[in-house]
Parts: sequence; C-alpha cells; structure tokens
Amino acid sequence: MSQDWLIESCFAIDEDSRQRALDHQAQLTKPPGSLGALETLAVRLAGMQHVAMPSVQSVWISIFAGDHGVAAEGVSAFPQVVTGEMIRNFANGGAAISVLARSLGAMLEVVNLGTVNDPGELPNVRRAIIAPQTNNFCEQPAMSAVQLELALRAGADSAQAALEAGAKLFIGGEMGIANTTSAAALACGLLRESPSALAGAGTGLDAAGIQHKVAVIERALALYPADDDALAWLGRVGGFEIAALCGAYIAAAQRGIPVLVDGFITTAAALAAVRINPSCREWMFFAHRSRERGHARLLSVLEADPLLDLGLRLGEGSGAATAVPLMRLACELHSRMATFAQAGVSSA
Amino acid sequence: MSQDWLIESCFAIDEDSRQRALDHQAQLTKPPGSLGALETLAVRLAGMQHVAMPSVQSVWISIFAGDHGVAAEGVSAFPQVVTGEMIRNFANGGAAISVLARSLGAMLEVVNLGTVNDPGELPNVRRAIIAPQTNNFCEQPAMSAVQLELALRAGADSAQAALEAGAKLFIGGEMGIANTTSAAALACGLLRESPSALAGAGTGLDAAGIQHKVAVIERALALYPADDDALAWLGRVGGFEIAALCGAYIAAAQRGIPVLVDGFITTAAALAAVRINPSCREWMFFAHRSRERGHARLLSVLEADPLLDLGLRLGEGSGAATAVPLMRLACELHSRMATFAQAGVSSA
Repeated sequence: MSQDWLIESCFAIDEDSRQRALDHQAQLTKPPGSLGALETLAVRLAGMQHVAMPSVQSVWISIFAGDHGVAAEGVSAFPQVVTGEMIRNFANGGAAISVLARSLGAMLEVVNLGTVNDPGELPNVRRAIIAPQTNNFCEQPAMSAVQLELALRAGADSAQAALEAGAKLFIGGEMGIANTTSAAALACGLLRESPSALAGAGTGLDAAGIQHKVAVIERALALYPADDDALAWLGRVGGFEIAALCGAYIAAAQRGIPVLVDGFITTAAALAAVRINPSCREWMFFAHRSRERGHARLLSVLEADPLLDLGLRLGEGSGAATAVPLMRLACELHSRMATFAQAGVSSA
Repeated sequence: MSQDWLIESCFAIDEDSRQRALDHQAQLTKPPGSLGALETLAVRLAGMQHVAMPSVQSVWISIFAGDHGVAAEGVSAFPQVVTGEMIRNFANGGAAISVLARSLGAMLEVVNLGTVNDPGELPNVRRAIIAPQTNNFCEQPAMSAVQLELALRAGADSAQAALEAGAKLFIGGEMGIANTTSAAALACGLLRESPSALAGAGTGLDAAGIQHKVAVIERALALYPADDDALAWLGRVGGFEIAALCGAYIAAAQRGIPVLVDGFITTAAALAAVRINPSCREWMFFAHRSRERGHARLLSVLEADPLLDLGLRLGEGSGAATAVPLMRLACELHSRMATFAQAGVSSA
C-alpha cells in the first residue's frame, strides 16, 4: 500500500467567494464586526464552499472506535469492555452523540476498527476491523505499518462517504478505553513534551492515577528516538481510531469538506494530520476547549480559537456536535439578514 | 401607581426536582461530570420548571426599544433615527434577532417605548409609548417617577405575555441609539465605579469618542449623591428600554420563567433587577461575554459564568438567542441519553 495520498494537496479555498462574503457582511444591518466569531465563521465557510452564502445544514459524523493494548496498564477509570458496549449504545441511540446527531439531523456512522469485546454486526456500524486491539505501546509499537495504513484509509473512506452523501461539514468522534493515554503519548512525541504536561484525568482518574499514566507514557517514549515524524509516532503510540481520525481529516480537506474538530483526542489526531499535510489546517474549525489537561496546549500549538468553553470532556464528537448550531446560525445570519439598503436603515 | 410588586418574592425553585435531575445525570452513559456546563444547565432548569426532565422548546423574545436624550451629546456612532428604522427592520424580519428568532422557532415581540423617529403601527410591534425619548441625563433626570413606573410595567407586561404563551425561557433584547452610554452610567451609579472602567466603544466609537462618552457620563454622575439606590439610578440615567428589561426580568422570575440575559446593556438591567429584588438572580442564565468594555465587570459582580464568548457586541438579544441551542441540547441530552442500566454499559 502507498501513503502518497496523505500528502496530496487539499481542496482550494476560493478567495473570490471569501471576499464576496466579506463585502456582504459589511452591508448587513448591524455595526461592523458586531457578530464577532459568527462573521468569521460564515466568511471562512464561503471560501471553502466556493459560494458567497454558505450552509452547514448537511452534517456528517463518524465515530471511530478501537481498543488499546495499553489499557492493560490500568490507565483508565473504566474497564476495557466499555468500548464495545458503547458501540452498541451508539447504534441503539442512547449515547450523547446519538442524541445530538438526532437533534441536529446529522448523518451518524460508527466505524468499528477493532474491539476486544466485539459487539458484532449492528445497524449504522461499519466494520473495518484491524485487530481486537493495538499492542501495548509500553512494550512494542502500537501497530504495524500495515495496520496504520488500514486505519488511515478507514478514516479516508469515511470522508469519501461524507462527500458522496453531500455533507457540508465533517465531524470525527472517538471511543476507545485508554485513548487519552494514547493521544497524550502521541502529542508528547510530536511536541517533544513531557507527559506530565499533557496527560490528564481522562474519564476520571485521581491524582495517583494520572501519575501512573504519566509513568506509562514515559516508558513508551523511552523506546524511541526524539524525532517528530508524525506517521511514525501514530504507529508507535497511536490508536486505530486516532489514526483513522487523522486520515479522515486529511481526506475531508482534500475533498473540500470543512472539518469540525472535537476535544483532546481528536485535536491530537488533528495535530498529526497537520504535521503530515500542513494544507489541511485551513479546513479545520475547532469546536471547544475541553477540560482535559493538555487540550489547551494542543489548541495553542495549532493556533486554534475554539467556539465553546463549557468544561466538556466526554469525547464521541459530542463537543463538536454541540457547536454545530453556532455554525448554522452564523450561516443563517449571513444569508438572511437585511442589508442597510434593503431595510432603509441609516449607516454609521 | 405602586412599585410594591417589584419586591414580591420570585417563584420557588423546587429542590426535589433539582435533586432528581442530579441523580438522573449520574446514571447517564458518560463519565460523571463530562458534559460540564450542559449538565449544570439541565439540573438548574429542572429545579426552575419543577420537573426532572426540563425543556426550553418554547422561547419568548421581547425586544424593548426606546430613544435617549443623551444621544444629543454625540455619544453614538449611529444617528438617532436608527432606533425607529431598526424597529421596522425587526418587524420586517431583516434584523439579526429576527433571523435568529425564526431559526429557533421563538416567539418575538417588539415593544416600542418611545422613539424620535416613530415607525408607527407595525405587525408584532406593541406600542407602549412613554415619550419620544428620555431627557438628556447630563442635564436632568432621564425620566420622571411616573415614566419609570410605566417602563418597568411595560417589561412586566411582556413577562406576563410570555407566561400566557407558555414560554419556558424569557429573552430580553434592546434597541436604542446611545443606550450603551445609559447602561454604563447606570452601572457606574450602582457600583460607584468610574466611567472610564465601564464605558466602551458601543456600536463603534474610536478612542476619542469613548473619552467623550466618559466625560458625558461623569457630568451626569456629578448631579447625584453617591448612593446605590437602584430604582433611583434607573430614573436618573436609565432608558425606557433598560427599565423595561429590569421590570421584565423581575416579573419573569416571579412567574417562574427562567431568564437568559444577553450582553452589556441587558446585564446592566439585570444588575439593577438583582439590586431591587435579589431573589431574581437565581432565575438568570447568562448567554455570553460581550466584547463591550465593562461587560466582564458586570458579569463578575453578578457571579455569572456565561455560556459563550464569541466577541459579540450587537445587542437586540442576539447573543442570548445564539445560546438557546446549547440550552436545548443540554435538555435533550439530559432526557434522552440512555442510563448505564438501560444500555448495558459497565460503569467505572
């Protein structure tokens, strides 16, 4: 298999559409700039969608799920069986992201990349099984080169499905017990940072638990040279779902679908994606600042200014879904407000 | 007329419903607390609505509009005719709040309390005309005791209309050229604060314009003793729409309708309301942190933790409307997610 697709150019932003949107904003019946980030959102989307009046009515959500060998180190507050159990909960409509997707009228697919407690065939769950779990990355690389490629391509397949479904926005979510440990290790590798700065409570570790998690990541990092090869680090300490997110973000940007990044784990995947293919950065919106320690640092490295700061730390793409109404309202204000001329309102 | 109604008790919060909502949250398939502020929202609403499963599907928005004599001092970037012009824009559906209200399916009424450029009878505009404008508060009190009472009662009438329409959430918005000057003066009076700390750019003043605005407010404050009588300050430097907002907030809380406060001007009105009737504070949610200088201070005084921080500074209730989807999603997550037992998911 070839990884050349990862570095192919992303879709072009249309500067003319962006400028027309900017000019239109200046005509709307409000003080210039008074809608703040909502104005910026609409203008950026216009450039991405090559239209002056963008829309994000059609939203695609892919939840990538996979198990982690490093869970054996006792780094999560929840048992490993929960990954498979939650896939079933997604399919049955009971998880947070299921409720949010229904409320938003978003398309939701779950991609099972391999779970120890395999829930089997389920409606709206695509099986792209790579292995029951990654290797315990304290002891050996999390995955082989072939497994990494399969995961990246599984993500790209989701972006392609989103394109074919007419999606105007791509949200990736994740589920995988121990995956804040994997995401923190990946971020440490990419940033040459100490685990104590990036490892957090995840689903609910106490201080001793976090300390143990830090030690586990330190053991893993000590196995490798201090390079910043993003693909290498994905294979060394990543997860199937994290690699799939990385592939999905790049492939969505290559297909001209804006990406809305969720929380800590997805931002680690986004950082890897930007390191592999820097042109995908301009296709990314950031939904929220998570409570998970380390997220603020990753956002800062990516120069990201997220839309929400609500103390969320659930994952599943739930923070991204929560921000969708803001993007929709930004588009509606942009396209439906009257201009000063239309309304007969005096300008400043 | 009597003002005794202002200090009547607010509706009781139901502690049992609040506790049942809190217990329910702990059963949902997510790490405890991982939905952050969305959990808090749902639990607070449960106590207010006296149900374990709250809802904010039915939203009422009242936009209070009025002109300000202090506009003669040249404190706004826009001419005074805009107040009346914008009432017409609200009625015709072209303003930001009109677009947002349609998108949310919210009920929208506009209350004309008196404008120099009177747009006359219009659909969905209630005429509660007090005078064409307030007095220039640099020279004399903005309004008489009777005018103040009329404005407060006009606001209470809107809260009553919201109740009769079955609203589960009350949003107040405002329109009135020069009303950031009035709101800043009111806040200075209530907090015994210097105008330079609370007066900002409003619709778009430059540094010299802000300096002039500060001087105008200083002249007004010098006319009165340094007391903190909220009703007195409303009459001295308030606006008809600001007093109406104050009356509406108190009356909504007395009727058991949660209030979602918008930006700088509405927060100044909320501060006056809390000073007049402290029990209304617990009925208030705060939608966003505005870019207008002074708003952060008012939020801090009210110990308010707003939902959004998007650099908005438009007014009209637009920031509050933008936050409504977050409240709705909080309620849907709360009432529609599966519990660990229902979903067969293992807990921590």
